[in-house]
Amino acid sequence: MFKDILERIVSHCSGGVGAVLMGYDGIGIEQYSAEENLLDLNLVGIEYSNVTKEIRNAAEVLKVGELEEVAIKTERYYVIIHSLTEEYFVALMLERTGNYGQGRYLLMREAPELRQALV
Amino acid sequence: MFKDILERIVSHCSGGVGAVLMGYDGIGIEQYSAEENLLDLNLVGIEYSNVTKEIRNAAEVLKVGELEEVAIKTERYYVIIHSLTEEYFVALMLERTGNYGQGRYLLMREAPELRQALV
Repeated sequence: MFKDILERIVSHCSGGVGAVLMGYDGIGIEQYSAEENLLDLNLVGIEYSNVTKEIRNAAEVLKVGELEEVAIKTERYYVIIHSLTEEYFVALMLERTGNYGQGRYLLMREAPELRQALV
Repeated sequence: MFKDILERIVSHCSGGVGAVLMGYDGIGIEQYSAEENLLDLNLVGIEYSNVTKEIRNAAEVLKVGELEEVAIKTERYYVIIHSLTEEYFVALMLERTGNYGQGRYLLMREAPELRQALV
């Protein structure tokens, strides 16, 4: 069920490489990779759960409200992290030639269904 | 000189709240606030330099290339972090009603001049 939603996000996103559903504690629930994916999605999830924890701490110190989304652009990939609940987030990896705006939109569109399935 | 560039970024960006030029070590170089700014920009810089350090570590572990940009959306603000050199970055804070795409563009447009002034 989770896998279907993740697959929908990755396959509908131009340049989509993979997606992970993950706890902020670094424990992955589900992941989906496009065939040509060369990234270790589990490692991606673990690394970015650390990052996201750090950002949530910063947001608390700065009193800027709850974290909703993080987008990271590196030389080779985009990673878009969308917060789902207090405990879980979904992250989408895209090629740099992929459609970043589309990725953000797809995560936003599928978030309610993921949230519902997590309860 | 730095201040002029930061002012240009903030004032040309719809919803721009402030900008900081900062080292990844948490030492600020310059900052500019729009009048109505209620955020402590120095604290913003320090908190996000920690975040950015964590992201650079993740990028190194994952071998996804150098960090170029981070965008963080919280309940109340957008923060866009644009990497300038090995040691420095510029961060722009925007209201949630502000123009996020415009902010990204302005940072990209002014980055070469900031980079040049840093040498």
